[in-house]
Amino acid sequence: MAKDGAVQVALLGGGTVGSGVSRILAEKGTVYADLLGCPLVLAGALVRDALKPRPDLAASLITTDAARLLDDPAIDIVVEVMGVEQPALDYISRALTAGKYVVTANKEVMAKHGPRLLTLAREHDVDLLFEASVGSGIPIIAPLRRDMLANRIVSLSAIINGTTNYILTAMSREEADFASVLRRAQELGYAEPDPANDVEGEDARFKLAILASLAFRSPVRPEEIYREGITGLAAKDFRYAAELGYAIKLLALARCDAAGIQARVHPALLPAEAPLAKVDGVLNAVEVEGDLSGRVHFQGPGAGSLPATSAVIADVLDAAQSIIGGRRAAHAAAQTVLPVLPMADLLTRYYLRLTVSDRPGVLAQIATRLGDQDISIASVIQKEANMDARTAELVIMTHEAREASMQQALKSLAELDVVEALGSFLRVEES
Amino acid sequence: MAKDGAVQVALLGGGTVGSGVSRILAEKGTVYADLLGCPLVLAGALVRDALKPRPDLAASLITTDAARLLDDPAIDIVVEVMGVEQPALDYISRALTAGKYVVTANKEVMAKHGPRLLTLAREHDVDLLFEASVGSGIPIIAPLRRDMLANRIVSLSAIINGTTNYILTAMSREEADFASVLRRAQELGYAEPDPANDVEGEDARFKLAILASLAFRSPVRPEEIYREGITGLAAKDFRYAAELGYAIKLLALARCDAAGIQARVHPALLPAEAPLAKVDGVLNAVEVEGDLSGRVHFQGPGAGSLPATSAVIADVLDAAQSIIGGRRAAHAAAQTVLPVLPMADLLTRYYLRLTVSDRPGVLAQIATRLGDQDISIASVIQKEANMDARTAELVIMTHEAREASMQQALKSLAELDVVEALGSFLRVEES
Repeated sequence: MAKDGAVQVALLGGGTVGSGVSRILAEKGTVYADLLGCPLVLAGALVRDALKPRPDLAASLITTDAARLLDDPAIDIVVEVMGVEQPALDYISRALTAGKYVVTANKEVMAKHGPRLLTLAREHDVDLLFEASVGSGIPIIAPLRRDMLANRIVSLSAIINGTTNYILTAMSREEADFASVLRRAQELGYAEPDPANDVEGEDARFKLAILASLAFRSPVRPEEIYREGITGLAAKDFRYAAELGYAIKLLALARCDAAGIQARVHPALLPAEAPLAKVDGVLNAVEVEGDLSGRVHFQGPGAGSLPATSAVIADVLDAAQSIIGGRRAAHAAAQTVLPVLPMADLLTRYYLRLTVSDRPGVLAQIATRLGDQDISIASVIQKEANMDARTAELVIMTHEAREASMQQALKSLAELDVVEALGSFLRVEES
Repeated sequence: MAKDGAVQVALLGGGTVGSGVSRILAEKGTVYADLLGCPLVLAGALVRDALKPRPDLAASLITTDAARLLDDPAIDIVVEVMGVEQPALDYISRALTAGKYVVTANKEVMAKHGPRLLTLAREHDVDLLFEASVGSGIPIIAPLRRDMLANRIVSLSAIINGTTNYILTAMSREEADFASVLRRAQELGYAEPDPANDVEGEDARFKLAILASLAFRSPVRPEEIYREGITGLAAKDFRYAAELGYAIKLLALARCDAAGIQARVHPALLPAEAPLAKVDGVLNAVEVEGDLSGRVHFQGPGAGSLPATSAVIADVLDAAQSIIGGRRAAHAAAQTVLPVLPMADLLTRYYLRLTVSDRPGVLAQIATRLGDQDISIASVIQKEANMDARTAELVIMTHEAREASMQQALKSLAELDVVEALGSFLRVEES
């Protein structure tokens, strides 16, 4: 409310989301002014390339000098949509310290520094809002911060990377292999030229760190989250999984109980009738289980300029209402610091695909090695005997076992003469 | 903040939701106090029967005299979970006028009087919160009021009555008839002894009025919403629909464009792969389509004491934070008053099941009558010829047609000698 009774917004970043935000703020300015009871004005935009034509931005608003915006006392709200860690982290910290509200879409910054930045915001009696950092236009941050607040959150299960979900859906429907589907996803713009961040699960890990920290009110750092990508999956795994009644999804999972927090990102088998199993293509979905609410499911487009703009502007309007209404920052609830449990302690069921010698007694040897680690077999199917190589493929589903035991068993199986290759090894989530 | 630096809550209603709220406020009092930074105290509970044992309520808190709570200046927040229109409406109005925040789960009051009560709340610089009135523990009111605020809402599609969804799911899975499934639902407590409010679509109509008024920022009164129940559906309709690739659901639908608002509650055919087609049993789901966000889907348990308690206490915590933080009520955005369009103007496809004489030329006569109203047939399947009665069953899917024309055509078909009975008539929603 620094100038002329209007709320002044500075935009940092002129990429896909930034241009969506500036365009929609221009197009819907009257609507937002009516909602707020005062104008919402874009007062400046930091871009990397000042010469690039930007039809929705007046030339006078464009700057390549961050200080011009961060040091301007007239700016009420700073919107950071630059991505990656630096200089975004510095700019956010400076804006909060200057008593400005900050809205960010930056998952890396929030995953790595969220708890500290939220404290910084409270110290300066402002808010840091980050709805667009996870699930784009799907409301999930605000529901965790507000709507589910009466609950103890028991678990989170999510599909929060559209690129990998697109790839897995295509692999499943077309029985295509990873490399060819990835190429197509790149051509369609669903995957980056360097896809590692997505297909190795790093992006999902950032987002899960944000959700878990919020849900369990205890900081969960991304590097504490077990991570496994989708590059090792074969087309036939989808076929075998389907025969057994399962889909394969890259899941981001977190659970909290008295012992601590378990958090992990990896491909997993999921019963075909589970709601998350039906989330296909570039859609995202998050399931939150509260002790009162039960399981609540949020789903929608997880990427794209306009869905992200929807989330960013919702946060901007919320910040503007706080500024106009004179709302003080919420009380800082005590953060417990719960341990993040080691992956070795996980108890779950496993799917295992092996190429073995096609001769009698092989299954007995495998069952013995598993049994040595207290792992019992729930079902086993023999697939695709290769007459020439005299090999066969075995698909084994285990009963519940400890991850540490399973890893031990895998090593032990690899040593067996009759095991030609360990194909896939996947965890099974009974939702 | 009237007494001892605590937020004081009065509870109106000692039924299923009321007892959930009082129990959880007692059990989680320390957690909520930590979240707020000050105690949240249940200061009194209005009940109908003061003699009924209530293990979670101290006897000193119980009263049958509403004035004792409504006139107590120490009460900050009034929680109304009595249900039905009166005296709840009076109590809510009195509480707001006295400058108290109000949290209500009352769909009838909000559907019929929501816009007026929200204005009353703003006039007294407080808020009226009603998350539990639709979809129980599923966050949907707050997302519409906050998270989707940057959007123009294009449409709402919802399954918001658990009783009817339970019945339709069972009819579909078991090929059972309505009456027998209703009886079982009543035995299981999923349907009331007098089920009319649910099975005739009245409950869904109240909830749609609330959602549509909020989404389109224009008052939609329940009596303006077209309503049709599920009592006329036959088990075979589910079988025929499935053969055609559709499920049958009781949908609450609203759409807004330049011409006005179209809002309706009726059973409809829905493509089997649509997300709402997969919402089974007592689950509820709401799909909101925003011009920026795209289609966002919210799903979860739509009934039960604890899910409702989750929503009620979320609202109580929100109100408490406003009281503690000194937040002033949000600016009253201008309400447009858009016309609610007549059902006669609807354009959609139709499913029609007829019993006809089993002789040549019948289909030609039917097609002619439809053609007279500009309705063209997309597909027709002949079902179950009855040799003795010399009748056959026809299932007709039409192309898009105007509702008024279809109603005219139905009258005209009923007059045909060769039409023995008009079985079912259902609208088809292509999601």
